[in-house]
Amino acid sequence: MTLAEYVSRQQLRIDEALERVVPAESTAPESIHKAMRYSLFAGGKRIRPILCMAAAEAVSDSPPGIESAACTLELIHTYSLIHDDLPALDNDDLRRGMPTCHKVFGEAMAILAGDALLTLAFQVLAQLACEPGPKTRLIEELAVAAGTVGGMIGGQVNDLEGERKHPTAELLDDIHRAKTGALLKASVKMGGIYAGADVDQLHALSSYGEHVGLAFQIVDDVLDVEQPSEALGKTAGKDAQQQKITFPAVYGLARSREMAEEERQAAHLALQPFDERAERLRELADFIVRRKT
Amino acid sequence: MTLAEYVSRQQLRIDEALERVVPAESTAPESIHKAMRYSLFAGGKRIRPILCMAAAEAVSDSPPGIESAACTLELIHTYSLIHDDLPALDNDDLRRGMPTCHKVFGEAMAILAGDALLTLAFQVLAQLACEPGPKTRLIEELAVAAGTVGGMIGGQVNDLEGERKHPTAELLDDIHRAKTGALLKASVKMGGIYAGADVDQLHALSSYGEHVGLAFQIVDDVLDVEQPSEALGKTAGKDAQQQKITFPAVYGLARSREMAEEERQAAHLALQPFDERAERLRELADFIVRRKT
Repeated sequence: MTLAEYVSRQQLRIDEALERVVPAESTAPESIHKAMRYSLFAGGKRIRPILCMAAAEAVSDSPPGIESAACTLELIHTYSLIHDDLPALDNDDLRRGMPTCHKVFGEAMAILAGDALLTLAFQVLAQLACEPGPKTRLIEELAVAAGTVGGMIGGQVNDLEGERKHPTAELLDDIHRAKTGALLKASVKMGGIYAGADVDQLHALSSYGEHVGLAFQIVDDVLDVEQPSEALGKTAGKDAQQQKITFPAVYGLARSREMAEEERQAAHLALQPFDERAERLRELADFIVRRKT
Repeated sequence: MTLAEYVSRQQLRIDEALERVVPAESTAPESIHKAMRYSLFAGGKRIRPILCMAAAEAVSDSPPGIESAACTLELIHTYSLIHDDLPALDNDDLRRGMPTCHKVFGEAMAILAGDALLTLAFQVLAQLACEPGPKTRLIEELAVAAGTVGGMIGGQVNDLEGERKHPTAELLDDIHRAKTGALLKASVKMGGIYAGADVDQLHALSSYGEHVGLAFQIVDDVLDVEQPSEALGKTAGKDAQQQKITFPAVYGLARSREMAEEERQAAHLALQPFDERAERLRELADFIVRRKT
């Protein structure tokens, strides 16, 4: 199976899991379930859940039910996009090529839909069919990665407050390690925890997750400069317009591309303790750095 | 110890637990921790955590660490107030006698502070020192009560969409059972789960929680009509102004007061299987119905 086929198959598994865990549009109150589903099924690449499943497969052969744990990462990611796009935050009208949640359902519903996706992520984890021990570790991992101290919300705050500040390497590192890095790293770790990774394996996965997370963000910043809106499915060039602190802003485009390549290699190195079962993780690191959207 | 003394003592325990679990104002990023703490320590009555602790005490003598579990209810309650007060929702400038979170810290920070409190609630539960089995049950209970299907967010959606609709008894029941009832009921149940309640005890506590939750909301609606803003610490008369579906709007003031009294009695009845260790729960039902703010 090629990586493209593997990714398509995993996307399908994730979409089926999301379909199962998110209340149907016909469930009352219908409006919020429509809003949640609108943003969830708007063509996301499912990179976080796919990393989670690939990490689990690196530890153990297809652990059953992993897709239910993995899909909670997409619930968190989607909630963060809905709230980030709000007029009070990034004020974006376009996401994945479609009008953003608040443009379609209004601001009140978008705020509540984000809250609901965040809440649902923890409900789904609490209701997993696995043992309560690893379950509480998954919940802790996700909550910390999504939180304020070194987590996603903390990175979002630094990002907001960083606008119009002088872009230094230190500030950039702080922002991205938290804003996107924490959740990507947690994706990989959660896969390992679910599959019963030992301490050494979890350490290796954590290191892989950190490098892949950084690579992902560098490439995201580079694409925001290089690609037109139509290709990205979101408003391109917003970073520069909002004077965001990005890798191209701090290091320039050429050095940023080199750095992404260095992180890709470091991700591969981190996986040395693993056998061929980690092959998909290796390919995913390559894919993340070489993607064009 | 009088009920007033008991309540003060429990409020102190909750405030200490919140102090411990919420990052200090000096923790980076400082701005969000300031915003979270501003709303958390704005003089809330801590009714949900107090109900949780009293329920636990009805089952077992002072279960250790219950205040850490109980304080997560205040994290959820406070997040919901911050988001409800936003301009896109209830657009309220005053809460507990102080300017609302977004008036002080701006809308972006208020949205993120709410998200952060919600996320933190699950982190704190996942990190409790108790067994993983009950821990995952507490997390599930809280997530469902805060969610869209019969939970707090669902009630909030119905409330928003109910504005300017004809106020029927059925719509009113739907809204309040979910909007405030679900979290109050979960407060009582979580105390029971934490303290190791058996099935019958949990059933009785659940019934008590349901009646107390309904009583609480009826009284809230009545006070919104009867009391001036200064006494409530929030803008009074907003329900009528926004054409909200309330108990006085559907049943009139006199019948609403009677209904609150009926719910108080039903709450007492539900506690019959319990001995004198449930005395504080009984007194709290009385307090909730007879309060003036």
